[in-house]
Amino acid sequence: MRIYLDNNATTIVDPKVKELMDPFFSQMYGNPNSLHSFGTETHPAIRHAIDSMYSAINANDNDDIVVTSCATESINWVLKSIFFEHGFNSNKKHIITTTVEHPAVNAACKYLEKFGAKVTYLPINEQGIITVNQVAEAITEETLLVSIMWANNETGMIFPIDEVSKVCKEKGVLFHSDGVQAVGKIALDLSKTEIDFLSFSAHKFHGPKGVGGLYIKNGRSLEPLFHGGEHMGGMRSGTLNVPGIVGMGEAMRLANESLEYEGSTVRRLRDKLEDSILELPDVFVVGDRENRTPNTILVSIRGVEGEAMLWDLSKQGIAASTGSACASEDLEANPVLLAIGADIELAHTAIRLSLSRFTTEEEIDFTAKVFKDSVERLRKISSSYA
Amino acid sequence: MRIYLDNNATTIVDPKVKELMDPFFSQMYGNPNSLHSFGTETHPAIRHAIDSMYSAINANDNDDIVVTSCATESINWVLKSIFFEHGFNSNKKHIITTTVEHPAVNAACKYLEKFGAKVTYLPINEQGIITVNQVAEAITEETLLVSIMWANNETGMIFPIDEVSKVCKEKGVLFHSDGVQAVGKIALDLSKTEIDFLSFSAHKFHGPKGVGGLYIKNGRSLEPLFHGGEHMGGMRSGTLNVPGIVGMGEAMRLANESLEYEGSTVRRLRDKLEDSILELPDVFVVGDRENRTPNTILVSIRGVEGEAMLWDLSKQGIAASTGSACASEDLEANPVLLAIGADIELAHTAIRLSLSRFTTEEEIDFTAKVFKDSVERLRKISSSYA
Repeated sequence: MRIYLDNNATTIVDPKVKELMDPFFSQMYGNPNSLHSFGTETHPAIRHAIDSMYSAINANDNDDIVVTSCATESINWVLKSIFFEHGFNSNKKHIITTTVEHPAVNAACKYLEKFGAKVTYLPINEQGIITVNQVAEAITEETLLVSIMWANNETGMIFPIDEVSKVCKEKGVLFHSDGVQAVGKIALDLSKTEIDFLSFSAHKFHGPKGVGGLYIKNGRSLEPLFHGGEHMGGMRSGTLNVPGIVGMGEAMRLANESLEYEGSTVRRLRDKLEDSILELPDVFVVGDRENRTPNTILVSIRGVEGEAMLWDLSKQGIAASTGSACASEDLEANPVLLAIGADIELAHTAIRLSLSRFTTEEEIDFTAKVFKDSVERLRKISSSYA
Repeated sequence: MRIYLDNNATTIVDPKVKELMDPFFSQMYGNPNSLHSFGTETHPAIRHAIDSMYSAINANDNDDIVVTSCATESINWVLKSIFFEHGFNSNKKHIITTTVEHPAVNAACKYLEKFGAKVTYLPINEQGIITVNQVAEAITEETLLVSIMWANNETGMIFPIDEVSKVCKEKGVLFHSDGVQAVGKIALDLSKTEIDFLSFSAHKFHGPKGVGGLYIKNGRSLEPLFHGGEHMGGMRSGTLNVPGIVGMGEAMRLANESLEYEGSTVRRLRDKLEDSILELPDVFVVGDRENRTPNTILVSIRGVEGEAMLWDLSKQGIAASTGSACASEDLEANPVLLAIGADIELAHTAIRLSLSRFTTEEEIDFTAKVFKDSVERLRKISSSYA
């Protein structure tokens, strides 16, 4: 049996999504910008896909959704364009973010610091979140932009984005949210928030890799990151990735349709696995279940190295991770656990299990058993656990 | 019959390429950065694809090929990173390019002018090319970068890139070439040129849309455009587009393998079509055949509007264009024809026919007939042609 429980790293492309993409490689392969039928015959599918994206996050018709190559592009685009357009030559050089953002936000901020950006990195509390008061207190007259993730990739903890967006609006500060771990997992209604920019990535919700998006609220301007042939209304040049767009649209539609299933069945399976793990002594799960995306568990197991545990799970065909795949080659202590105040030994014991709508009860039952057996075995040979 | 003669805009994905990509959507869908088998099982295919890219352009093992989302990304990356790293805070603010580059180069240069870049746009001569002397004469002590395309997208004319790269090397100036219309159409040997950076795009050589590359010569540094999770050796963050990489590698391998066919059969079919068109009076093909990519014809037909001609061809199932798809929604006069000194009326009559290895003799014979009939018909009703 092969069991994939690393859905916060990437997901299987839903076979229905793949099926819809298929004709756009070698049959309807025209360039949508071309005037002939090979070009124009792609238009209905592109329009349908874009409509699905708008519906899935309930964006307004006057808002923009620009298709990019991934959330890393969307995030770099927002942060850099806003800073260079509005911050670089003004006294508004202050950016507020958190210590637990995805590396794309963090590294883009570090880059902007070289050009004079002053960045506040808000720490998370022991529940794994930041509070709206932290944001309100950090905003000064020099604040240009707040960038805070909607849900954390390691813990699944949901940040108070509606409230944060209201504070930003009140204080006249632009607000970007990295929605990568939220889109397709929890219901988002962009018509009811004050979010200016939202980044997302298709491969996190059973769409293809290599395509993502940026939601831009009506009236917000953004200098392009890619200048060129004036594609996407001049916002993002480059020949349209037709199969990618079609795939992301359908994946968003299906994910949105599955939200109820995600909130009920996926949540039930996650809770079942978590309950089973919590029967072990000296294990610690980060954050309140109710305030977490329904598919995620980040658990620390005192006395058990994360990598040893991964290896044990892997031998039984179970794929999990010690944290973000974007940093997993480093074998470092889990940064989110460090941020909530765990000691360094505990931070080295983090295991992330992330489910999807493709996860079955049989897989969860098997994983629960393997997990317990492994913890017991590894603790027996542990030098630090007695 | 549907005949696709717009291969400089985009190409059919070779069914063999599609077949190789297929398993990486819903079977081997892991994140290559993950430590478990779902991640690592993608590694051999990625390595094989990257090897194919190196082989296809004969890059050195010490050079870098970084996978991007398209040539527009590669081009924006090179131009902006070099300018902001080495030009912005120095007196080396001079960039040399041509008047006939792809919009990505042109628009990126216009953007950099806002930050103090001084850009020289070299005009092409009546053969549709620039000469090495023009470049040598334009270089000053303030010149930072030269960016010149290898082959022109509208005419197929091949620019003297080897000589230009040598001049740049001699004078200590960085050299980038937009190789989008050259890779897969003519033999490139990067081990024998002084090119520092080369951009390319998979969908121009029967690979998928949404993936491209940037070749970086050994020893050249480049600040990333996408900061983040340190993918691709820290050069370009963002989860690897595994099917895209696999597809581009195989497409480059197949294109390289087909170069002889391209230079013989595709060239013969192109010449046959061109000969037939040239039997008409008052038609004008841009540039010497021997110095053109073997698949391209840009023809002006006095008295016949380009769009009217496209429409006539389209009714018979033939897809052509009036020029670059990246600008074709504009219905403007062909900029390359204007650049070589054609009058504005002639520049409105441009038709580009671009073949591929999938073009058949039957298609060419049919097109030749339709083309002649259409020109005769349209000239009869033309107000400007007597």
